[in-house]
Amino acid sequence: MAPARKAAFLAIGSELLRSERVDTNSLVAARLLSPCGFVFVEKRVLEDDVDAIAMALRELAGRVELIVVSGGLGPTADDVTREAAARAFGRELQRDDRMLSLLRARYERNGRTMPAIAARMADAVAGAELLVNPQGTAPGQLLVEGACTVVLLPGVPIELEEIVRQHLVPRWPGSAARLVRTLRLGGTYESAVEERVAPLYGRFGRANVTILAGRGLVDLVLAAEGDDAASRLAEMEELFAVAAGADLYGRDDDTLAAVVLELLRRVGWTLATAESCTGGLVAARLTAVPGASDVFLGGVVAYANSVKERLLGVSTELLADHGAVSREVAEALATGARTLGADCGVGITGIAGPSGGTPAKSVGTVHIAVATPGGTRQLERRFPGDRTAVREFAANFALDLTRRALEEA
Amino acid sequence: MAPARKAAFLAIGSELLRSERVDTNSLVAARLLSPCGFVFVEKRVLEDDVDAIAMALRELAGRVELIVVSGGLGPTADDVTREAAARAFGRELQRDDRMLSLLRARYERNGRTMPAIAARMADAVAGAELLVNPQGTAPGQLLVEGACTVVLLPGVPIELEEIVRQHLVPRWPGSAARLVRTLRLGGTYESAVEERVAPLYGRFGRANVTILAGRGLVDLVLAAEGDDAASRLAEMEELFAVAAGADLYGRDDDTLAAVVLELLRRVGWTLATAESCTGGLVAARLTAVPGASDVFLGGVVAYANSVKERLLGVSTELLADHGAVSREVAEALATGARTLGADCGVGITGIAGPSGGTPAKSVGTVHIAVATPGGTRQLERRFPGDRTAVREFAANFALDLTRRALEEA
Repeated sequence: MAPARKAAFLAIGSELLRSERVDTNSLVAARLLSPCGFVFVEKRVLEDDVDAIAMALRELAGRVELIVVSGGLGPTADDVTREAAARAFGRELQRDDRMLSLLRARYERNGRTMPAIAARMADAVAGAELLVNPQGTAPGQLLVEGACTVVLLPGVPIELEEIVRQHLVPRWPGSAARLVRTLRLGGTYESAVEERVAPLYGRFGRANVTILAGRGLVDLVLAAEGDDAASRLAEMEELFAVAAGADLYGRDDDTLAAVVLELLRRVGWTLATAESCTGGLVAARLTAVPGASDVFLGGVVAYANSVKERLLGVSTELLADHGAVSREVAEALATGARTLGADCGVGITGIAGPSGGTPAKSVGTVHIAVATPGGTRQLERRFPGDRTAVREFAANFALDLTRRALEEA
Repeated sequence: MAPARKAAFLAIGSELLRSERVDTNSLVAARLLSPCGFVFVEKRVLEDDVDAIAMALRELAGRVELIVVSGGLGPTADDVTREAAARAFGRELQRDDRMLSLLRARYERNGRTMPAIAARMADAVAGAELLVNPQGTAPGQLLVEGACTVVLLPGVPIELEEIVRQHLVPRWPGSAARLVRTLRLGGTYESAVEERVAPLYGRFGRANVTILAGRGLVDLVLAAEGDDAASRLAEMEELFAVAAGADLYGRDDDTLAAVVLELLRRVGWTLATAESCTGGLVAARLTAVPGASDVFLGGVVAYANSVKERLLGVSTELLADHGAVSREVAEALATGARTLGADCGVGITGIAGPSGGTPAKSVGTVHIAVATPGGTRQLERRFPGDRTAVREFAANFALDLTRRALEEA
């Protein structure tokens, strides 16, 4: 396997520097070109400014092997990518007669006369190869500058994607430069995982491990490059899985909700939820998975105490004695969820904030219970952050507690 | 008005250079800091690499007045932004005792012991001001290097946003370089809105109007620059609001769920939900808003027919005669939701896919009903897209139908 080659992405357009719109062409370029052996080490977004673009191109060409530029190839005056590339590398712009005929023919096919200004799109950087645009008008351009290949592409997503597919991917046939495996952990925190896996860094290199934390969920992204990438990745996976222990719920594209549903099918149980502070988040996660209906019956969002009593049989006395946010009520909710006809019930109650906290029960306090034919398990946590954070922590820990109960069923 | 000052945004994280994830923190920074007089002229995304980050910081500090850096401030070994900033400007890293105590107290408040590794988050670049993080653990840092202010912020979006709001915005009081107003529309589609507002482009300039579409939600982002920005923006807002008509539900940071809850308070009604295909999404949206509990009682996620019958009184005959996905069952769900004790009930049933479609009722078919003391209104739609898209369309149209019912109550 060839070693990874460094690539950079450059998106051109003042509209990508305001607060409304983000470049997504770089995701397409990374997806299509990483199997060709390229690893993107930098992205930039620049204004429609000839000098700024030229400076960036010159600088990047000295340290990467591929620069993909998106945008600024249209016919209007603010489309300056061609001029910038010419200036960066001290080349001329030359009108390409063959491309000019193609452009004119394209306009005529659409029943229009080519406006004079459109001829600019046929201006090629000297020495560049023009890349016909199967989805639009402006052609791409490819030029080689020393050890670096510079590709200018139109910014319209579908046009960029088709040019990459048809003109670029075939140039660098399959040299999988970088293999990646993600281990997915639930019911834990980033720092706790970091402490457990840190002793393995020395062996595999710190740069080959990325920890991504979502509230109560932690992904360990493991990577290996080079000729022995496959065997090294297998070894990494084995050792990191040991360190992850019972927190490991899946790999790569597995989601916690899908894993819970699959475990239910394996055990032969159905599930129902009774949510207070998460307000339907757990049910929404489960039903986001296609086919959930064969094991998920439904649930109750029991926000008001009257709903807890009426639909789930939580007694007025229990609510009065322990308060709605208590271990006892979480267990009553989980048991109440089973009365919907399910084998397994999940109950969640807590204080998501920002108000509702007391000295004894502060904002972030959450009780979760899972009731199954084999018994009930529960946990209490105080989650950090705002209302959104507490609710997401609670939903993820609830799904994870359900997973653990099912794995031991 | 002061002239615009140049700013750059730097997002740190190898995960933002692959094909899965895109930086969105820069949108928040641009939105919050442009009223402070900053214009972002460049964005970069870099790997977790000390040298690359240090080089970019040094280069950018020479040509912009503000650099906002996002990410790489956590406790783990791949969080190298602090080291990179220290190296870029030839400064030391010094552990800050006061911040260390704050961090320790924060962990203890959440019932955990601070892991040794977390102490790194208290390492300040010499001369930097530490910015307390109200939403999370890692503090931000602000340092002045010549004419440039460099701000290091955590990559978690809500944490970054709060630090910008609390610590940065107040530093540069209002010199509005570019005024922006967003009109928010619900229960509609992008192309329908585009047709209605297109006649206004000539008057205000196409570049000053951005249409952002989410499933069933459309934002019209209106912008004005220059000395008469305020009066021009007011005129734009007036004319575009007329074009938006009854689809207009709010402005700027208004969310549809918050608008519905506020209308309930105004009318003096309570609300309950009965969701089938949306599986709890509508309840989750409503309960995401602080204070929802004073008008939202709860709901039922009625996925299995048995749950529709048992908890909401939908009759077996109705389900057999019309099918679970029908106008009649949507109305029975809405009426059933009212039996939870609410004045207003919302019922949603549909085929989210990918399976479950028939020639007569294809995937994407959704029935929504809203029952109030004044009567019942309903709509049927066939939404495009995959399971996620259909569910989000359905949730947004359901909230919007509720809004319209409440506005006319």
